[in-house]
Amino acid sequence: MAGTAGQVIRCKAAVSWEAGKPLVMEEVEVAPPQAMEVRIKILFTSLCHTDVYFWEAKVSTFAFFLTWIVESVGEGVTELQPGDHVLPVFTGECKECPHCKSEESNMCDLLRINTDRGVMLNDNKSRFSINGKPIYHFVGTSTFSEYTVVHVGCVAKINPAAPLDKVCVLSCGISTGLGATLNVAKPKKGQSVAIFGLGAVGLAAAEGARMSGASRIIGIDLNPNRFDEAKKFGVTEFVNPKDHSKPVQEVIAEMTNGGVDRSVECTGNINAMISAFECVHDGWGVAVLVGVPNKDDAFKTHPMNLLNERTLKGTFFGNFKPRTDLPSVVEKYMNKELELEKFITHEVPFSEINKAFDYMLQGAGLRCLIRMGE
Amino acid sequence: MAGTAGQVIRCKAAVSWEAGKPLVMEEVEVAPPQAMEVRIKILFTSLCHTDVYFWEAKVSTFAFFLTWIVESVGEGVTELQPGDHVLPVFTGECKECPHCKSEESNMCDLLRINTDRGVMLNDNKSRFSINGKPIYHFVGTSTFSEYTVVHVGCVAKINPAAPLDKVCVLSCGISTGLGATLNVAKPKKGQSVAIFGLGAVGLAAAEGARMSGASRIIGIDLNPNRFDEAKKFGVTEFVNPKDHSKPVQEVIAEMTNGGVDRSVECTGNINAMISAFECVHDGWGVAVLVGVPNKDDAFKTHPMNLLNERTLKGTFFGNFKPRTDLPSVVEKYMNKELELEKFITHEVPFSEINKAFDYMLQGAGLRCLIRMGE
Ligand SMILES: NC(=O)c1ccc[n+]([C@@H]2O[C@H](COP(=O)([O-])OP(=O)(O)OC[C@H]3O[C@@H](n4cnc5c(N)ncnc54)[C@H](O)[C@@H]3O)[C@@H](O)[C@H]2O)c1
Ligand SMILES: NC(=O)c1ccc[n+]([C@@H]2O[C@H](COP(=O)([O-])OP(=O)(O)OC[C@H]3O[C@@H](n4cnc5c(N)ncnc54)[C@H](O)[C@@H]3O)[C@@H](O)[C@H]2O)c1
Ligand SMILES: [Zn+2]
Ligand SMILES: [Zn+2]
Ligand SMILES: [Zn+2]
Ligand SMILES: [Zn+2]
Repeated sequence: MAGTAGQVIRCKAAVSWEAGKPLVMEEVEVAPPQAMEVRIKILFTSLCHTDVYFWEAKVSTFAFFLTWIVESVGEGVTELQPGDHVLPVFTGECKECPHCKSEESNMCDLLRINTDRGVMLNDNKSRFSINGKPIYHFVGTSTFSEYTVVHVGCVAKINPAAPLDKVCVLSCGISTGLGATLNVAKPKKGQSVAIFGLGAVGLAAAEGARMSGASRIIGIDLNPNRFDEAKKFGVTEFVNPKDHSKPVQEVIAEMTNGGVDRSVECTGNINAMISAFECVHDGWGVAVLVGVPNKDDAFKTHPMNLLNERTLKGTFFGNFKPRTDLPSVVEKYMNKELELEKFITHEVPFSEINKAFDYMLQGAGLRCLIRMGE
Repeated sequence: MAGTAGQVIRCKAAVSWEAGKPLVMEEVEVAPPQAMEVRIKILFTSLCHTDVYFWEAKVSTFAFFLTWIVESVGEGVTELQPGDHVLPVFTGECKECPHCKSEESNMCDLLRINTDRGVMLNDNKSRFSINGKPIYHFVGTSTFSEYTVVHVGCVAKINPAAPLDKVCVLSCGISTGLGATLNVAKPKKGQSVAIFGLGAVGLAAAEGARMSGASRIIGIDLNPNRFDEAKKFGVTEFVNPKDHSKPVQEVIAEMTNGGVDRSVECTGNINAMISAFECVHDGWGVAVLVGVPNKDDAFKTHPMNLLNERTLKGTFFGNFKPRTDLPSVVEKYMNKELELEKFITHEVPFSEINKAFDYMLQGAGLRCLIRMGE
């Protein structure tokens, strides 16, 4: 691969020229990496429907998770070399800002949320062009290319022995759900855990509960179709709020002698957030919010619910620091502590990428793997 | 003292026959302790104005903290002996229920809040009588007696070398504020802490911040008279919300480059609770609620404030387990880590107990010591 270092690479890309329209295959030019950037060859990709909150509005967009091999590195990049296997993430870790230096936060001031998706930090320009004309990745315009350029702070170097067609799902919602349980809710062995919302994020949170040795994993969803799949993820009991006349937090308190030990909310629905908080046991219960709310939502509860020693937290990317922590999540998969296969329900070649969008929009399965380069 | 074991003791008591009316000195009879009870001689007492939330309404009542010496013990009491020095608390610790067995909770199912204040658990009767007629300690009716009988779960055995006229203040709000910082907010050395409300509880929270090595302790109160006293408690900066046109959480965020590391709310005011939460830094900030809210208050915030990795908690008695933890708080005082003298601003003999009420109702000083038995 070193033969292409410093050169513009021409390769195939699927470009979404308009939100909601099918992707179009194009030939793109990918510029060499500049200072603190790496250029990468993409082997597998997948997609998930993420609601990105841009501080002003909840905008639905697509996020992609992928596994990559480093093709070349820009000036100042010492941690990575051509040939390294890496996982990219939608947020970054500069290792220098107060968030990166805090043990508790992963909300990097420099690279938090997509800063490099549109343009690169180094020169505020895109590294992609078509026939010499730059293309930008704004919301609603996405490019899936065989090669891409990213800031070094947005990729985690992983064990080269890890199968890239499995660990690729760790780049986004699955790490988010997993980390919400393992890093934030932290159930102890034998405790009960409620999971609100049984999409991929919620099921990853359930996987975290299973790994923690939870005694009961109670899944809550409005859609009963989710319950069958959830059984594979260790969910032991199901509650559909629609089946009850009383608030679901009261149903759960009755099932658990006063409340669950931990809850993780993965719906984005404000009522589920409130229920997830109010269903935890007084004295020690911890509730973790993961779902992205709407702009005008208000979280509302009686303060006595807090004074009775409940804890309420939220998380972004499951509190994982991408470069520091993702390599050890990959190791958990290698040790067979963590199961990832069950999240990958479909697979398509790159040329059929639009099928992957269809699966996702229909809500069929969990994750569709897109095999690049063939 | 063993000479009185098993006998009814006649002694002086100050009885409040009607809420808000002065106490009247009476002679009372104190029955011997029954199973799991201890009878105690009171040496010092003090009082504070606590709003006790009875699940239904916020009721203002008086709570008393005292130091006691065990006079005799009832059947089944093995931990305490006549002559032991003890601190009583308004909540208890049975050591058997799920809360007592949890590392995180102190909200004992059996002895939580005042269960023994009115009648004893053992036979649902009072141990006090006047001329043979039982008197009950309901809300608004209180008895300060030279001897009293309590459940063994509501007293902590302490170092007999500790000066009782100092450690007596640890029974209520001062432990609450101290524990809110030390056990729940847990600031790290060098972190910034905001304290909302600079009454005795808030100043005890500030004392906890000082002990933790906080770099900045920002006191927030609507009453500027509180600021002078607060300087003795290590509070380094003051904010009066009335001096600013923007919300106090924004003022604090500007003072601290995005927010304080920890905040402790000790006002009971719902707006202060919301400000205390919203003024902590994203990524790692922790807010702790201590103040007792009104019945119809609603805690309301945008859920993004949580998703940005802030933590919200509440505490009851500063999360101290009374029997397990108070002895080590006394040791902190003995080691000179914790200062208690500055909380005791007045002192009166038992016969002038009504003066102590006047000081408290006027808001003069912090704690008034009542010297019993002379
Ligand atoms: N905080 C982060 O870093 C982060 C990262 C990725 C995704 N997310 C968010 O996580 C959430 C879940 O993502 P996903 O991909 O699993 O979504 P999804 O749409 O596949 O699953 C959400 C599930 O929640 C259920 N649901 C909706 N309202 C409910 C209610 N009131 N009660 C019970 N169930 C309810 C739906 O039926 C659905 O099954 C989304 O809000 C997403 O934006 C957050
Ligand atoms: N959770 C517990 O276990 C526990 C135990 C004891 C006391 N408490 C509660 O702690 C609180 C404080 O007790 P205290 O004895 O110190 O009371 P206090 O009345 O002496 O002090 C409260 C202070 O808060 C200030 N204040 C009120 N509203 C404010 C606002 N909006 N912004 C800023 N400051 C404001 C007042 O001016 C006052 O100085 C009370 O609500 C009490 O019921 C709780
Ligand atoms: Zn950073
Ligand atoms: Zn995603
Ligand atoms: Zn108990
Ligand atoms: Zn008190």
